[in-house]
Formats: sequence, C-alpha cells, structure tokens
Amino acid sequence: MQFELTKDYLDQLKTSIKKQDQVLITKQGNELHPADIAEILDNLNLEEAKYFYNQIEEEKAAEVLIELEEDVRESFLASLSSKEIADQVIENIDSDDAADVISELSETVKEEVISHLEDPEQASDIIELLTHDENSAGGLMGKEFIAVNKNLNVVNCLKELRKQAEKTEEVYAIYVIDDDNKLLGLLSLNKMLLAPTQTPISEIYEQEVIKVTTETKSEDVAIIMKKYDLIVLPVVDESGKLEGRITIDDVVDLIKEEAEKDYQMASGISEDVESTDSIWDLTRARLPWLMIGMVGGILGARVIGAFDIHDNIEMALFIPLIAAMGGNVGVQSAAIVVQGLANKSISIDSIFEKLIKELGVALLNGFICSVLILTIAMLLGYGAFLSITVSIALLSVIVFAALFGTFVPLALNKYNIDPALATGPFITTVNDILGLMLYFLIGQMVTLLI
Amino acid sequence: MQFELTKDYLDQLKTSIKKQDQVLITKQGNELHPADIAEILDNLNLEEAKYFYNQIEEEKAAEVLIELEEDVRESFLASLSSKEIADQVIENIDSDDAADVISELSETVKEEVISHLEDPEQASDIIELLTHDENSAGGLMGKEFIAVNKNLNVVNCLKELRKQAEKTEEVYAIYVIDDDNKLLGLLSLNKMLLAPTQTPISEIYEQEVIKVTTETKSEDVAIIMKKYDLIVLPVVDESGKLEGRITIDDVVDLIKEEAEKDYQMASGISEDVESTDSIWDLTRARLPWLMIGMVGGILGARVIGAFDIHDNIEMALFIPLIAAMGGNVGVQSAAIVVQGLANKSISIDSIFEKLIKELGVALLNGFICSVLILTIAMLLGYGAFLSITVSIALLSVIVFAALFGTFVPLALNKYNIDPALATGPFITTVNDILGLMLYFLIGQMVTLLI
Repeated sequence: MQFELTKDYLDQLKTSIKKQDQVLITKQGNELHPADIAEILDNLNLEEAKYFYNQIEEEKAAEVLIELEEDVRESFLASLSSKEIADQVIENIDSDDAADVISELSETVKEEVISHLEDPEQASDIIELLTHDENSAGGLMGKEFIAVNKNLNVVNCLKELRKQAEKTEEVYAIYVIDDDNKLLGLLSLNKMLLAPTQTPISEIYEQEVIKVTTETKSEDVAIIMKKYDLIVLPVVDESGKLEGRITIDDVVDLIKEEAEKDYQMASGISEDVESTDSIWDLTRARLPWLMIGMVGGILGARVIGAFDIHDNIEMALFIPLIAAMGGNVGVQSAAIVVQGLANKSISIDSIFEKLIKELGVALLNGFICSVLILTIAMLLGYGAFLSITVSIALLSVIVFAALFGTFVPLALNKYNIDPALATGPFITTVNDILGLMLYFLIGQMVTLLI
Repeated sequence: MQFELTKDYLDQLKTSIKKQDQVLITKQGNELHPADIAEILDNLNLEEAKYFYNQIEEEKAAEVLIELEEDVRESFLASLSSKEIADQVIENIDSDDAADVISELSETVKEEVISHLEDPEQASDIIELLTHDENSAGGLMGKEFIAVNKNLNVVNCLKELRKQAEKTEEVYAIYVIDDDNKLLGLLSLNKMLLAPTQTPISEIYEQEVIKVTTETKSEDVAIIMKKYDLIVLPVVDESGKLEGRITIDDVVDLIKEEAEKDYQMASGISEDVESTDSIWDLTRARLPWLMIGMVGGILGARVIGAFDIHDNIEMALFIPLIAAMGGNVGVQSAAIVVQGLANKSISIDSIFEKLIKELGVALLNGFICSVLILTIAMLLGYGAFLSITVSIALLSVIVFAALFGTFVPLALNKYNIDPALATGPFITTVNDILGLMLYFLIGQMVTLLI
C-alpha cells in the first residue's frame, strides 16, 4: 500500500531520466509523497536528482527539499539564486523548516534570501527563530500556532480561528492568551464545539498547560513531550509570552537521532554515517576508534612484556579470556548508566549508591564466572597454578571493570561531557589493559604463594 | 517549571505517608500530572504507593495506572476486584489503553472485568482489540476517532462532530467514510472552518490518505509515521473499513524501546533492564553474554595451545591487539548493517554489493592500520619477524572481521531472526577466536618464509 523504494524502481527511473521522459517523471512527481520523492532523490546522482526535482510543482518541491539529506539539499540550494530560494522554497514551508534551511546557507546568501521575502511578518519570524540556539526549544519551534484572547466568547473565537486558520496548516491546539500575549492555557476544540455559543473562553479553557521556555534544551523537550504524551508543546519567553510551538514529528526525529548516536558510539563509530555513505566516509568514521584499539593493543604488548612471561608461558593462553571479559563487563556497566542518564531515570541515587549497587552485581557475576572457570580449567587439565590465577584474576577484572564502567560515564556527565563517549572502544580498551595488568600481577602473587 | 523527582522530595513524601498526612498527599495527587505521580509510585514501595494511589481521584488514578511500570501495575491490579477494575479503571481510559491493561490480566479475571463493563459498545471494542496481535497496527490502535459520512455538508458535519466529540477526548483528524464505513479520506479542520456552511464534505476532503491495515507490523507503523511526519494514522481492515487510529505518542514509546533494545544488545545486555532494577535482575540480564565471552576465552586458550607458542614466545605480546581489533571491526560493521536494516534504508543494494563495499572500507582501514603497526613495532624494537607477522595478521583480521560482521546480521535478517543479536558479545567473541587462529597461522607461515 505504501511506496517502497526498490532497486528495480530506481533503475527504471534512471532510464526514464536518461530518456528525458518528462511525462512519466511529472506523473511520478505528482503521485508520490514528498518524503518518498526525497528518498528517491537521495539515491540518484545530483544531475538525475535535479532533473526529477525540476518536474515537481513548486509547493511540493519545497516540501521535498526539507526532507532531503543535508548534503543533497546543500547542492540543490547552491544551484538556486537567493530570489529563487526565497520565492520557491521559503515561502512554501513552515517557519521552523524555513529557519533550518536558511541556517544552512552562508552569511551573505542568508541575508539576501531574507531580503527577498515578500511577507514582512514571515521575514521577522524567521529572523527571530535564527537567533535561538538550534539545540534549544527556540531552535525547534515554529511560529505557526493558533492563539485566542481569553476575553472572546465561543462565536468570536470561531471567527478568529477561521481567520488564523488560513495561514496555519494543521490545528493541533488552541492557545489562550491575555492582552500581553502571555500564555494562560489551552482550549480544547471539543469543549468549544460543545459549549453554548455565547460562553466566554475564560470559562472553558484549561489553565494547566505544560510549556517550556525558548532556552529549554532540545533533549529536555524530547523527554517532556515523551513523558506527558504531547503532540504539541507551547514555547514561551522568560516573561511568559507565547513565542511558538514544537510539534512531536520534529521531536521524533530527535529522539531517534539521539538513540542512534549512542548506539553508534557504543559500536565505535564516531560520525553519523549510514550504510549508503561512501567508502571514504565510512572509513573516516571508523578509523578513530580503531586507532584507540591499536594504542590499547600496543600498551597491552608493553604490559605483557613487562612481566617475565618465560617463567609462566601457559599464562599466555588465557590472555584473550581476561581481556575480553574486562571489555564486556565494562561495556555492559557503561551502557546501563548511559541509558539511565539519557532517560533521566537515575537522578535519584547518588554516584556512591550506584557504585555500591554495581559492586553487588559485579560480585555476583564475578563469583559465578570465577567458580565456573576454576572448575572448567581444572577439568581441562590446565593445572592448579594457572586455574587459580585465572579464577582470581577473572573475579578481580569483573569487579574492577564494572566499577570503572559505571564511574566513567557518571563522571563525564558531571562535567557535562557526553557520557556515551565512555562506552564502546574506549572503555573496552582501558579495561583490556588494566585487566592484563591485574592478571599478571595476580599470577606473580600466586607463584609466590604456591 | 516542570516537576522533577528528587531524592529529597521522595524522602519527604515517604515521611508524610508514614504519618498518614492525608491532606498533603491529596494535595500532591491533585496538583501533579498522572505521569509524574506514576514516576513517584514507581519509586515507592508497594504499601506506600497504594496509600498514595488511594488518595487520588478516580479518573486521574486510572490515568496514573496506565503510566506505571508493568510490574508495579500488576500488583496494583491484583489488589482490586474485577468490578473495581472495570468501574474505576477501564471505564476511565481510552480503548487502546484499556485493551493493554486487560491483556495483562489472567484469563478468568479478563472475562470478569469485561462482563462488568456497563457500556456494551466499549466492551465490544475492547473484545475486538484483544483479538489483534500486540505487535501489529491492530494491537496499537484505539477506537476513539471521529468519522463523518461524505454525504454530509459542513453544517451537518459540525453537528455530527459535536455529537462524537463527547466521547473522544482529542480531535486530531476527521475521517471521511462512505455508507459501508470504508475510509475515503481526511477532512482538514481548517478547510471545514473556511468553507461555506452548505458545502458538501465530498467536495472539500483530501482523498489521499496514508493508512495501514490491522495486520501491519508495529515496526512498519513506526517507520511510516516517522517518515511521513504523522500525528495520527488510520487503521483499516482488509476490506478498507475504518477500524481505528494510532496516535504518535504510542509510537514514540515504541521507537524509543526499539532503539534501546538494539543498544542494549550491542552492549551485551539480554533483557530490558534499567539501572533502578534489582541486583538480581541486572545480574541475570548480563550473565548470558558473559558466558558467551567465557566460552570464547576458553576456545581462545585452546587455539593458542594448539600452536607451539614456546617457539615464538614474543607472539603472546600482541594477542590482545589482534583479539581487540577483530572484535572492534566486527562490531562496527554489524552496527552499520543493523541500523540500516532497522531504518529500511539498505534494501536497495544486494548482500553481495554490501559485502563488496564493506571489503573496500576494510581494505582501506586495514591497510592504514597495518602500515602503522609495522612502523611502530619496528621502532619499538620488536624485530622483523614479529612486526611483519602482526602487520599481515592485522590486515587479514580487519578484512575478515568486517566481512563477517556485515554478513552475519544480513543473513540473520534473511531468516527473520533479529539482526541485533549479531552485534555485541557474539560477534566480538567469534572474531576474537578466528582472529587468533589467523594470527598464529600467519606466524607459522612467516617463520617458514623468513
């Protein structure tokens, strides 16, 4: 039922573009949803994409543009004049999208585009939106909302609604304001439809309304909208004046991006890449973490070299086990902390309480693993010295790695550094090295005791 | 501005509950949002939570209940009779939430609760919703929507809207249906407000509407709503009859859960746990992956033992480097594939094309890393044999791990197994072992050649 982009479809389309089959392309452009067209354009080369784009009618083309991937959009905009950007693109899209598009332009083009806008209100809306940090509620909000004065009655309110509805595409909420534009509350469309026509708005509006200020951080906006199941969230300035609204669709993208970023960091990918990106982009995103792994590996070689392995060659056999377990436990611990921090669900306990709890988990896991490895190593005939060494080392490594994996992201968070940095290769590498040191130290001690 | 749960607040509340300070608790219950109350109850013990819950007025209490964590809700429901569940809870919440709550009950209680429902329409709605798979659009949808016949005009439509609005809390969309309840399209509230009162609906409604069937998988629902920026999505049966609607807030939870699940799997956590869960739950979620790591470590010991390490003791030094790099590269490759599959952005290329591309990335990364390690190892004085062996082994391990990390999730996906299973400890462990085998094999070959 929904459009699905296949290789066959794309091949046929490319052939049609080569043949300059205008009729077919225009038909596709008319029938498909802007989001689908954008998906297609992202998968064509620039020349093909431009040919397709030029067959789409103006209003739809503007919507396609905002759905494109940033690099594709950039090359499209570069081929348009400032006046074309203003007339064909900006005037056809919502203020929040308009501000996003304009913010991607160079300073001079930015000013030119704004000067070409015919509607002075739109221009001033966009200028205002551009002043906000893009990672704040002010940067996320749009100026398209419906607001009615509390002194109106239902009939007048409906009239006002009709007037405002012309410039607002979708009505998700009706805000009630006072004479100073201060946000007082929310008017439910239902309540209005059900109330007698002369009822004053002030009698039927909902006074409790969840709102944020323009300065609220994007991630907090996402948490609030998710927690309270909001479709739209009003944004006010410091004095309480209604400035804009944030719709959930923008926040959905944000929630998804945040989660993907954490996942990529945990997997050792340092930039936002997709499998469709170029080999060079993919390599660049992956190389930094591999370098960390290399440094770790070389340090690991130094650690092993520092102990005289000739005396106990068989200790080499369990190097992979010790290194792997340290890494695994560290990543597990860090992941739980990072996720808890992202959801703000772990503000209640102190760092100290977290560490105590993690110590409990680590001791339990460590005890089970070390008893198991002792038994198995003995059964496999690795001898008492090696079995005992590996068993004690494993317990120590698990406990140490768990505490380290918990502590590092909490500490980073305290200093406002993204705690997700602590997951993945970094924590694996550090735990690898420290695990090896523990292993050989314990080996030396066991040698002395036995 | 928003409520934030702190340890201090919780401590004070616990004291008030102990003192049975009914006035203060009732005040809190009246002032706070259901989602905030649920957050508080999740952090109290069962007895305290029940005391608080009983001070909240019925309608709000029902909303609090659906926001609770599942295990807390279960114990709450267990303390209510079937009649209380029907009267106090189910009658105060939307049909989709009602079906979710009822589906958590035992078979007998389920039937009792439904038989206690006073509104026969509500009962039949819920019975119908319970027939759908919970991971399908039918399991996500609610029955609260506004639908008008295409033959009405604007005036009659407004009247119908008023009638239907009484039982629907929020109006996000007005659906247009024919006499057989078939979904024809969408009526924009704006268009209706702006049209002359005698205009027939059939002239002003939007005929293109994105919809899904009751059988559509939840994850596809999430992809569609995100892609097309939808706030609400209509659900039809096979014959096109309008059956319900899905609101974005339910899908936001889903998107977040999916992303978190993949992240946890990549981090070696096998169940959905939070840092606030018990030590036992946390241990159980982490132990399975540690067991895989242990098996891998023991196999690693066998591999090293199989080669006569006495001849080249210095090879032990670089065991951690080879093992770590194999794991890192494998996890990176798998993560990119898993994320691409989750976003359906990689359906275009075939598995073969993916592998060719990954080979390119791996050769580039591998070449850079192996030249670097050769230089560094020589400079650090590890000698020609060891430096060359490590260098060649590293290139081989990186290429092999990348291909393996790409292939495994693609293969799992082909057989409808969650590809995220391939990330994290599993792929790290397999690559550890195979990396070690490659390393020692190459060591033997280099010995023969030098």
